[in-house]
Amino acid sequence: MNEPTTAPVVLQPLAAASRRAGLGELADRLLAMRDWVGDELIALERTLLELGGDDVAWSAARHLLHQPGKRIRPLCTLLASRLGSPSDGVVGVALAGELVHTATLLHDDVIDLGELRRGAPASRMVYGNSASVLAGDHLLVQALKAARKGPPAVCDELIDVIGKMVTAEAVQLNRRGVFDADADHYWGVIDGKTAALFEWALRAGGHLGGLNAEQVDALGTAGVHLGICFQLVDDAIDFSASDDLGKLPFADLREGKSTYPLLIASERDPSLLPRIQAVANGDEITDDLLAAIAATDALSATRDRAAQAADRAREALRTLPEGRARLGLIDLVNGAERRTR
Amino acid sequence: MNEPTTAPVVLQPLAAASRRAGLGELADRLLAMRDWVGDELIALERTLLELGGDDVAWSAARHLLHQPGKRIRPLCTLLASRLGSPSDGVVGVALAGELVHTATLLHDDVIDLGELRRGAPASRMVYGNSASVLAGDHLLVQALKAARKGPPAVCDELIDVIGKMVTAEAVQLNRRGVFDADADHYWGVIDGKTAALFEWALRAGGHLGGLNAEQVDALGTAGVHLGICFQLVDDAIDFSASDDLGKLPFADLREGKSTYPLLIASERDPSLLPRIQAVANGDEITDDLLAAIAATDALSATRDRAAQAADRAREALRTLPEGRARLGLIDLVNGAERRTR
Repeated sequence: MNEPTTAPVVLQPLAAASRRAGLGELADRLLAMRDWVGDELIALERTLLELGGDDVAWSAARHLLHQPGKRIRPLCTLLASRLGSPSDGVVGVALAGELVHTATLLHDDVIDLGELRRGAPASRMVYGNSASVLAGDHLLVQALKAARKGPPAVCDELIDVIGKMVTAEAVQLNRRGVFDADADHYWGVIDGKTAALFEWALRAGGHLGGLNAEQVDALGTAGVHLGICFQLVDDAIDFSASDDLGKLPFADLREGKSTYPLLIASERDPSLLPRIQAVANGDEITDDLLAAIAATDALSATRDRAAQAADRAREALRTLPEGRARLGLIDLVNGAERRTR
Repeated sequence: MNEPTTAPVVLQPLAAASRRAGLGELADRLLAMRDWVGDELIALERTLLELGGDDVAWSAARHLLHQPGKRIRPLCTLLASRLGSPSDGVVGVALAGELVHTATLLHDDVIDLGELRRGAPASRMVYGNSASVLAGDHLLVQALKAARKGPPAVCDELIDVIGKMVTAEAVQLNRRGVFDADADHYWGVIDGKTAALFEWALRAGGHLGGLNAEQVDALGTAGVHLGICFQLVDDAIDFSASDDLGKLPFADLREGKSTYPLLIASERDPSLLPRIQAVANGDEITDDLLAAIAATDALSATRDRAAQAADRAREALRTLPEGRARLGLIDLVNGAERRTR
């Protein structure tokens, strides 16, 4: 295991994306934010490296935990806490968000028979499905223990969020292989699988910083919309994914999952629906189908909807105390909106 | 779904076992205890029947929850709370123990590829592995939500117990197919998989009844030994199981799990070790092997060790306030010690 002695890679992916998009100034600000919370991020990485025991389920958990991630949920918690006066335990609570996120990836890969994750073989491919199920359980328990280091509301709310995430995954499982362009279903899944944990991460930071109830609620609202933005950008990336992301294009569709571009494409051109359904059921994707989807301009509709979510997140953040933490959170939203990988 | 309008079947299996063992008086007392906490048991069964949502993972969870169980962990909590003055939320907290127990059965069956459970097809055989993983997750979340209805220590301690249970299952997975007659391994697994939750169930009742720390600790000690007794009797039953229990004899061994009778048999006759290992790796069990194991008298050693654990549980209970609740808990230990199925 490598000891993290310098600020970790957190934020570099966002900064690099911003630079590629010609947003050098945003990139610089994201890297400066990394230095500002650098000590906490290093403590977080060190905790992640040292986590766990010596059974096979912990090996499966570490396999995924130790791959470089954006750590965007912990960063949300760290920055939100700095809107007030962060209490002890902020790193532990920040960690909880990353652990829950990783736990759900481990269980999702078992459920969806995923083979690749973050460009490497999924844990279940290396350690088996059984170890991955228990790995997810390990991480959920560790997350709850970490969340207990904050005020009681932090752990209470995390239990509710895990419940929402499990329900969303189960609803998605119900519809596996069914692509029916059902917008309510799509938004329900996004809310449970992504938005709820971002909401929690920002609210938890607010609780730790000692903010009042109204401010914590504003952070939660920002979190929901940041989560939606994040997921929509993920959907857009899935639409144009390449091998070096560790994903094939339309990986989500092949697993029978709705994505926003496909939802929009089938709304705009209903003749696409049966053809997309056929792909969800195992047919090959043809160049002709790709061209027909592209003709609906679904990709820019997705980017537009992501920009709208980012606007709402920024709007909620602007009700909070001015200063470096608020600027950092707004830059995080800017980076999430513009990332291309 | 059937509405439970009369006292549920809880305790009847224990009472019937006592009657078969010629212990008519104990059987009568167990049934009287059922009437004493009957309202709470009915409320518990009703909550179990009404639990959950309409996704496939909830269907998988209910498949197992609705099969008649002994509900012995909830009963521990209900009776322990009556040692003091039970606060509101006692039924919810009692339920949490049953939900965690059921969640681990659902995950265990996925991990061990179990096909039968409580005499019926395992949930994963009906609803699939993915639904069963999420079903277990659903129940863990519900258990934590239910535990929050008690004082904070109840939910805190439940998080720790779930952690111990996951670790024990992972340690067992590490050794799957290895039968090495390692006593430390055996006791570590029993402690994590069975004793910890009984300990929690009794401690939770103590917290709800407003008992002092020393009394709660005594309940915890009783719970550990009741759990050990319960598991050893399970091991003895596995040794002589028949089809109508929904299990085949030596089902545990065939899944590569150590049981106490086999541990003792290999200690007493080391030549058995390679032969038992061969069964753990898929060989058929021969009548000759069964006879050789029986010749070590391992079964009565197991019953003796269970009786010793029951003694320790009763000893711890006798430090607690006299009365009907204490008598009830002692009878529960008596029933657990003597059950034959």
